[in-house]
Amino acid sequence: MTITDLGFGGSTSRGFTVSAQILTGEQTPDLAGWLAERLRATRFEVERIPFDRLNGWYFEPGSGNLVHSSGKYFAIEGLQVSTDLNDRDSWMQPIINQPEIGVLGIIVKSFHGVPHFLLQAKMEPGNVNTLQLSPTVQATRSNYTRVHGGGTVPYLEYFMHPRRGRVLVDSIQSEQGSWFLYKRNRNMVVEVTEDVPLLENFCWLTIGQVHELLRLNNVINMDTRTVLACVPFEPPNGGPRTEVDETYRQALLCSLARDQWSMHTVDEILSWMTEAKARYRFARQYVPLSAVDRWKRGETAISHENGRYFDVIAVDVMAGNREVVRWTQPMLTPVEQGRVAFLVRSINGVLHLLVHVRLEAGVLNIAELAPTLQCSPTNTSHLPEHQRPRYLDDVLNADPARIRYDAVQSEEGGRFYHAETRYQIIDVGEDFELAVPDDFRWITVRQLTELLRHSNYLNIQARSMLAALHTTW
Amino acid sequence: MTITDLGFGGSTSRGFTVSAQILTGEQTPDLAGWLAERLRATRFEVERIPFDRLNGWYFEPGSGNLVHSSGKYFAIEGLQVSTDLNDRDSWMQPIINQPEIGVLGIIVKSFHGVPHFLLQAKMEPGNVNTLQLSPTVQATRSNYTRVHGGGTVPYLEYFMHPRRGRVLVDSIQSEQGSWFLYKRNRNMVVEVTEDVPLLENFCWLTIGQVHELLRLNNVINMDTRTVLACVPFEPPNGGPRTEVDETYRQALLCSLARDQWSMHTVDEILSWMTEAKARYRFARQYVPLSAVDRWKRGETAISHENGRYFDVIAVDVMAGNREVVRWTQPMLTPVEQGRVAFLVRSINGVLHLLVHVRLEAGVLNIAELAPTLQCSPTNTSHLPEHQRPRYLDDVLNADPARIRYDAVQSEEGGRFYHAETRYQIIDVGEDFELAVPDDFRWITVRQLTELLRHSNYLNIQARSMLAALHTTW
Repeated sequence: MTITDLGFGGSTSRGFTVSAQILTGEQTPDLAGWLAERLRATRFEVERIPFDRLNGWYFEPGSGNLVHSSGKYFAIEGLQVSTDLNDRDSWMQPIINQPEIGVLGIIVKSFHGVPHFLLQAKMEPGNVNTLQLSPTVQATRSNYTRVHGGGTVPYLEYFMHPRRGRVLVDSIQSEQGSWFLYKRNRNMVVEVTEDVPLLENFCWLTIGQVHELLRLNNVINMDTRTVLACVPFEPPNGGPRTEVDETYRQALLCSLARDQWSMHTVDEILSWMTEAKARYRFARQYVPLSAVDRWKRGETAISHENGRYFDVIAVDVMAGNREVVRWTQPMLTPVEQGRVAFLVRSINGVLHLLVHVRLEAGVLNIAELAPTLQCSPTNTSHLPEHQRPRYLDDVLNADPARIRYDAVQSEEGGRFYHAETRYQIIDVGEDFELAVPDDFRWITVRQLTELLRHSNYLNIQARSMLAALHTTW
Repeated sequence: MTITDLGFGGSTSRGFTVSAQILTGEQTPDLAGWLAERLRATRFEVERIPFDRLNGWYFEPGSGNLVHSSGKYFAIEGLQVSTDLNDRDSWMQPIINQPEIGVLGIIVKSFHGVPHFLLQAKMEPGNVNTLQLSPTVQATRSNYTRVHGGGTVPYLEYFMHPRRGRVLVDSIQSEQGSWFLYKRNRNMVVEVTEDVPLLENFCWLTIGQVHELLRLNNVINMDTRTVLACVPFEPPNGGPRTEVDETYRQALLCSLARDQWSMHTVDEILSWMTEAKARYRFARQYVPLSAVDRWKRGETAISHENGRYFDVIAVDVMAGNREVVRWTQPMLTPVEQGRVAFLVRSINGVLHLLVHVRLEAGVLNIAELAPTLQCSPTNTSHLPEHQRPRYLDDVLNADPARIRYDAVQSEEGGRFYHAETRYQIIDVGEDFELAVPDDFRWITVRQLTELLRHSNYLNIQARSMLAALHTTW
């Protein structure tokens, strides 16, 4: 039986919605116990090391770029951005260059009529808590074509051409545009009807179980969140799954619906994004890492002269349960916890999100849709008023009773070391000013989900937030 | 009155369709006479010169890149592509680097209820015939921000923020991916209801008039064709405008319709494109022009060692009608006429186009949808069978009675010198094999038009062909 055969009105989004309503999955009822057991069975040590203890990585003579001896994998290089946006003029920064497209894929299979996701308890060097739940497959192209001589990637055959299973979600999406140059991954959900072997470290969860975990800190990893954001839902039947303001909930349900009133049409939103891409000069140019102004390389870190933004560091990792592997690699670690928030409000009874069109250094297509606020607070405190993040005060001073979602989540643990972000959804209410600056628009959940059928419209922070929003029905 | 006020069922596409039905526009009834008069009034001389007579352009020491002294405008650089597609492995080539986003904009205004386009008789150095009809505005960012110290661009205010008029079409589209690195222009149609002054060299035409001209060789320039491709139409009322096979016409009209049967859903097409982008390694890297293998720089041209593909040349241009201006610039000239064709056939009574997903060196998002055939025949004659263009023989041996469109058109005359391409639409009939190689799909006109609301789905050749297809109702 497939999701669309299950009598959910022939619709994939109806099947996903039913799964989201089931908070206790029969396949992994004691999830907390299972996770604790996995953690006990796992050996994992991460140590920060000086660059000269990196193995297989070196600073290329001349450019000073930090590269792998295979010439593949990723590299830390320099980027110069020249722009007339907000009088920012021009800046240089280190950036991770990894232009390959990897795969983030989740297998979905129905048990007794309820679709379940196959997730993995995965350790990654950057995690503050060793294990988080990742997609079924989370593989760079180097991984799955075996540049590193590692083992095969389990379940990869469900996502590679010619594949088994039916594709329900499939789009290429970006990752952190301030840290990655043009990095993108293919986000997939593939439905399988045959028997799927359940390997160690893997578990079957309903979307409802995943939603519960997503309300906690640091359990659902970034790669699971982005795939989850691409999953379409419909207004659910039945009551709320969690304690929630009823007016907010009704507006949210209307925002999920296919035929809804919205403040702007999708064509208007597309034209507004086109305007943002075409309006400003935003030229990106490679520069040697050693020529990046205001950044200094020490024994153990490459840092901004004022201690802002992030450091490039090196780590030594020992990990495994049965078989222990050991490797070293560079990572990027932000100097503080990030803040990301969506301000939302009901307009005409339909919940709208206040979306920012944002130009970021490493974004392939210049600009993407971002949450209302996305910043590192102290990194921006030195800026003149007109360059400071808009709506920062609305977030910092939000009435706790109006916060619909509030959790700390990790950014990708394979590249980012202890990179945590506080994600919040704040219902600002109907007194909040509808008129917004020209780089902001009020957009519905349904419209954002429509755009996610395509590539490069929502940035990773907006996608994380959209996944979080679906936990608030 | 706006297009949607005109009683065309409240639909912009209905208004465009009505305009396409009117073959004699009241605003410029004697178009041929007007064009001949414009040509007489125009002074235009283009001379090929050696590189050392270029003024303001020079080969940068070290890299050998051909650049402008302002550091802006465009540059001829080197590109290396490494890929596992079709065993092509790796190649280097010169490429035009112009990462700015320019504007191609057409003003539309209704006269007595019929929408008209404002086009310009424009001379460009690459044109074989001096004048072609361009959009109202055709400006690079350097043009309109006046890097060159030139005059203002007429009518630009209708397209710049904050603008007058209502946006009907607005998307960023690519240009020749084999010749341009990441080049894109913003394609716009803006509707104006106020009086618009008619400047010398400009004329108001119905879309029907434009369609008639598009059946001729080298009258409608590439920039007009790409904007026209983004214009949505609906099945027209009334009979055919031109002599056409009735079975073909009925299938074409079904292919324009909003609710139609189609062989694949749009989501399936998007997933198939995603697969093509993710499946192959396709890494692009800048290299110095002087380091490009197999290409040699002479006094007057940079050429491939076997005389294939294109030459980079230099020209001296003198042009004007009242005020004469003179400049020099590099250009790219292909070594032969290109061949582009769509094979089309009715499937279940709905016309489908055989679309190729094509990876090209300079395409920002790796792959775009291309016509069935796109090649320079003699450039590919040396290739082994499995690398030769698919369906070439079907095009070369097509039954003349089945050719629905056949014209020679020019590629962009500002960068390309005497670059002509023969464009054909061939109705292969219902006996033609429905099974196609994995990098081909049968897609309807409506589906392609839907994709054109977004950026970077159809390449410039596919867009030129789609514009041409609309002349065959």
